[in-house]
Amino acid sequence: MFKHTKVDLTARQRALKNMWSKFMDLIKKISDGKEPFLEIPKRTLSNTIYDEQRKLLLLGPEKLVRKLFDLHEARKFMQTMLMASIIYEALLNNEYPTIRDLYYRGKHTIVYRDHRGRLREENTWDEQRESDAVIRDLEVFLGVLREEMLILSKEKGKVVGYMKIRSGDDVVDLSRMGHGAYAIEPTPDLIEFLDVDAEYVLVVEKDAVFQQLHRIGFWKTHKVILVTSAGQPDRATRRFIRRLNEELKLPVYILTDADPYGWYIYSVFKIGSITLSYESERLATPNAKFLGVSMTDIFGDRKKGKKPYLTESERRNFIIKAKKADIKRAKELLNYRWFQTPRWIEEINIFLSKKAKLEIEALASKGLRFLAFHYIPEKLQVNDVID
Amino acid sequence: MFKHTKVDLTARQRALKNMWSKFMDLIKKISDGKEPFLEIPKRTLSNTIYDEQRKLLLLGPEKLVRKLFDLHEARKFMQTMLMASIIYEALLNNEYPTIRDLYYRGKHTIVYRDHRGRLREENTWDEQRESDAVIRDLEVFLGVLREEMLILSKEKGKVVGYMKIRSGDDVVDLSRMGHGAYAIEPTPDLIEFLDVDAEYVLVVEKDAVFQQLHRIGFWKTHKVILVTSAGQPDRATRRFIRRLNEELKLPVYILTDADPYGWYIYSVFKIGSITLSYESERLATPNAKFLGVSMTDIFGDRKKGKKPYLTESERRNFIIKAKKADIKRAKELLNYRWFQTPRWIEEINIFLSKKAKLEIEALASKGLRFLAFHYIPEKLQVNDVID
Repeated sequence: MFKHTKVDLTARQRALKNMWSKFMDLIKKISDGKEPFLEIPKRTLSNTIYDEQRKLLLLGPEKLVRKLFDLHEARKFMQTMLMASIIYEALLNNEYPTIRDLYYRGKHTIVYRDHRGRLREENTWDEQRESDAVIRDLEVFLGVLREEMLILSKEKGKVVGYMKIRSGDDVVDLSRMGHGAYAIEPTPDLIEFLDVDAEYVLVVEKDAVFQQLHRIGFWKTHKVILVTSAGQPDRATRRFIRRLNEELKLPVYILTDADPYGWYIYSVFKIGSITLSYESERLATPNAKFLGVSMTDIFGDRKKGKKPYLTESERRNFIIKAKKADIKRAKELLNYRWFQTPRWIEEINIFLSKKAKLEIEALASKGLRFLAFHYIPEKLQVNDVID
Repeated sequence: MFKHTKVDLTARQRALKNMWSKFMDLIKKISDGKEPFLEIPKRTLSNTIYDEQRKLLLLGPEKLVRKLFDLHEARKFMQTMLMASIIYEALLNNEYPTIRDLYYRGKHTIVYRDHRGRLREENTWDEQRESDAVIRDLEVFLGVLREEMLILSKEKGKVVGYMKIRSGDDVVDLSRMGHGAYAIEPTPDLIEFLDVDAEYVLVVEKDAVFQQLHRIGFWKTHKVILVTSAGQPDRATRRFIRRLNEELKLPVYILTDADPYGWYIYSVFKIGSITLSYESERLATPNAKFLGVSMTDIFGDRKKGKKPYLTESERRNFIIKAKKADIKRAKELLNYRWFQTPRWIEEINIFLSKKAKLEIEALASKGLRFLAFHYIPEKLQVNDVID
């Protein structure tokens, strides 16, 4: 017979207790004959604040009041209660829903008679966008991540390195994955870090480059926890990286293509995503640094006497011309406060004047050893990283 | 100091030997003063044959002759030789290139004087499409997969189950991955299967559903090797599945959404992809069967007395209306020989008449236990699968 892991059962109890206490207030209000309402931090752009000191995107102090007895709010109020009850039930029943799942679980048509006695129909929600928004409201209302309510999702993050972790009931040795890797679980808060023997964490945007660095033993010779986000990072990978930095005090370096898309990936790891700023407090790693590939890696920097890593002819062969969308994106990034540092302004300006992009693979094509045993260690040795 | 794994070194020797012998013929021709040419199986649609007996897409007998002394062929001939030499060198130097990498390694401009003495320039290749095509030509010319030449790529496939494998220098216990999973290596032919205790292989299209089935212990109670392709399967996942079926004689069942996109994923696992038919002989699993979700799971089958798994009201809430593109795709599938079986024709016709799609998550929303411990086992018990 299958037994749920102990960490899962504990996490469920914690989430249930949290929900219970938060919603008991509401029930008290109702049994006291008072109007039921929920006070939820506003997840709007105007209430999203960049905290200069903590270097994080955070939700501001604005709150919305969601009332049942308000025609504009009643539907949203009901949706929130419906979703809360579905999640609560799933927790009780040892279920592991996904957000898509929760959408289906709640989706149905309510048939009712209006004040004139006419038969009417209303859907609880039509699209997943609606139910997802309700889940987010619940996250900020309860002050927990959906992962802590045992809501699962697809995960792309992988890791190898000299580290043992306890996940579920198993102890997994991340240095004994052969040519494969460990696929990070969707509830990274339940991971326990055991033996760690590493100097720093390297996050590689591209899975294929991760495979290369892994296979050539880069993490073994340099004692690195090697992680890939396989493109835009998902929540679990971001939380995993944050925990490595916060709890194990490991420096975190991000390696992406030299283009606005790569910079944005770095920024999601470091600051959080703008539309989901409420997660940043738990998912972002403000200490993360951009290792490269930087524009000065490609073109050098005369003022600082930095030589480029590419020769003239390599530049001719490897550089990709920036597209209009890249230029537009780069200009947008300049508007973000966290890109308004001298080094980032310089970086983006070189890009805008040269209109040149470069993929990490271009460096690997100079020889994988060049990338693994020359470029990366040298960049770190002279601290040529961008904060 | 880092040491390359023994399996990698052995694989390199094998690939080097193969390339050496195939290209020595060419060198002999040249040193004998004969015209150098390569004879390569044609990778065209007209030379792609569906082998009814082996149930596989295969390359037919047509060959192309790539000559150096032919104006139309000279460029392609040179590209092929360039790529072969880059791969050969990478093998010698213990490198692990990716196909993107190989594109960059070979990309350069050749400056020459034409017969009138004018200075001219020609690029070896401009886009990766060109270099990728050359790699494919080499695969069919040499009769090996690119993975066997230690060319790496990104990989999405994950696996858990009662199985130990040897990968690289490690023995990995796929039943001890905690809440995470084992990310399959990009060179699955180098995996050695050790202890296996499983009844069958279940391949789930969606990573999130894989996470759910994993977390609820489905593979433990039912002794299943649980795999996800995380969408369209990549080459490594396909080869891994094929080896599980061929070498361990494990039945393979595919679980996808009930829509033409899901059917196509099944068909790529089973038959191969039409544009890359030459890979099928090694990557496809002709014995794979479609577990569901099938149209008769949704609507039942009166003739056979099969009851639907969904109630009338669940259908109303869960079914997604098919889009025009879905209808078009479904009609295309009917043209493929391997979909022209009574069961598949029935399946696709129900879809065309009902214009209804269903996601696996809709079944999970009836309760994850329903999906894991009722739907899947019952379907297998009564053998309600499609071949």
